[in-house]
Amino acid sequence: GGFGAPPVNDPMWGYFTAIAGQDGEIDSEELQRCLTQTGIHGTYSPFSLETCRLMISMLDRDLTGKMGFNEFKEVFVALSGWKQNFMMFDQDRSGSVEPHEMSQSLSSMGYRISPQALSGIIKRFSKNGRIYFDDYVACCVKLRAHTDTFRRRDNMQQGFVNFSYDEFLLCTMTI
Amino acid sequence: GGFGAPPVNDPMWGYFTAIAGQDGEIDSEELQRCLTQTGIHGTYSPFSLETCRLMISMLDRDLTGKMGFNEFKEVFVALSGWKQNFMMFDQDRSGSVEPHEMSQSLSSMGYRISPQALSGIIKRFSKNGRIYFDDYVACCVKLRAHTDTFRRRDNMQQGFVNFSYDEFLLCTMTI
Ligand SMILES: [Ca+2]
Ligand SMILES: [Ca+2]
Ligand SMILES: [Ca+2]
Repeated sequence: GGFGAPPVNDPMWGYFTAIAGQDGEIDSEELQRCLTQTGIHGTYSPFSLETCRLMISMLDRDLTGKMGFNEFKEVFVALSGWKQNFMMFDQDRSGSVEPHEMSQSLSSMGYRISPQALSGIIKRFSKNGRIYFDDYVACCVKLRAHTDTFRRRDNMQQGFVNFSYDEFLLCTMTI
Repeated sequence: GGFGAPPVNDPMWGYFTAIAGQDGEIDSEELQRCLTQTGIHGTYSPFSLETCRLMISMLDRDLTGKMGFNEFKEVFVALSGWKQNFMMFDQDRSGSVEPHEMSQSLSSMGYRISPQALSGIIKRFSKNGRIYFDDYVACCVKLRAHTDTFRRRDNMQQGFVNFSYDEFLLCTMTI
């Protein structure tokens, strides 16, 4: 098919349209339902609505709060990577990892973060000193989104970015 | 009492110590229990754990994930202001406000935000096109925290702030 034709040969297309419904896009409630049905969380708890919201905001450049077909596929790719990474550190399959395992996991994904920032981040996503899968994914989503924002703005690669108040709110409040 | 003495004459002190328990500080689960018991949400739904976490991060400069006595009192003051403001716009007491009322509410608190940023923010905190009290408070908490961060960094009042990657993550990931 030419440019703009629906990807009818893509095995996920029918699945996408069934979930998206009339408006042809997926919002956070639809995403939560879909992720719960597919069982991508495996033996872990299903994703919270908050984490599903974050997954959508991560890719939602036009700020509609919804996801098209390509973003939908991107979310699945990201999720399966994060799940693999999490399972590598949750060896006893308890559904949670310890702070030092979380550090190792983020390093293994290529993030270079100071001990102070790491410690603040890990505390933010912990419950009783442990990090559960849903919160782990929420953390990975935010980290990826904010790292993308930083790189996009730091186009001279000087290691610094500049924000007006309004730009700062747009970046921090919508994710 | 001299410097550092417990504020025994403060009527909230006994209440604080009862909630805080052994460690003498309040974490997000303790805050949620306490806010639900006091009924500060009134006829609205009790606060989610996520919103309670945000309330703590807003004031948590030392990144412990917990709150001392003064922060505890600050949260109550902020909450009662936000509740009053919300009730002014939720005149039919449905528990939610519409996007344009949310805009007016943020303006009435003194925030000056562009239409584009406002629209992104409001979408982020909406469910089915409306903003519920719990999400309203989450939005107010984040807005206050990020505005404080911006002002603190923009100490020359030039309207711009600068971040290294690590500083940016510390500001965006821990709230
Ligand atoms: Ca839809
Ligand atoms: Ca484990
Ligand atoms: Ca405690």
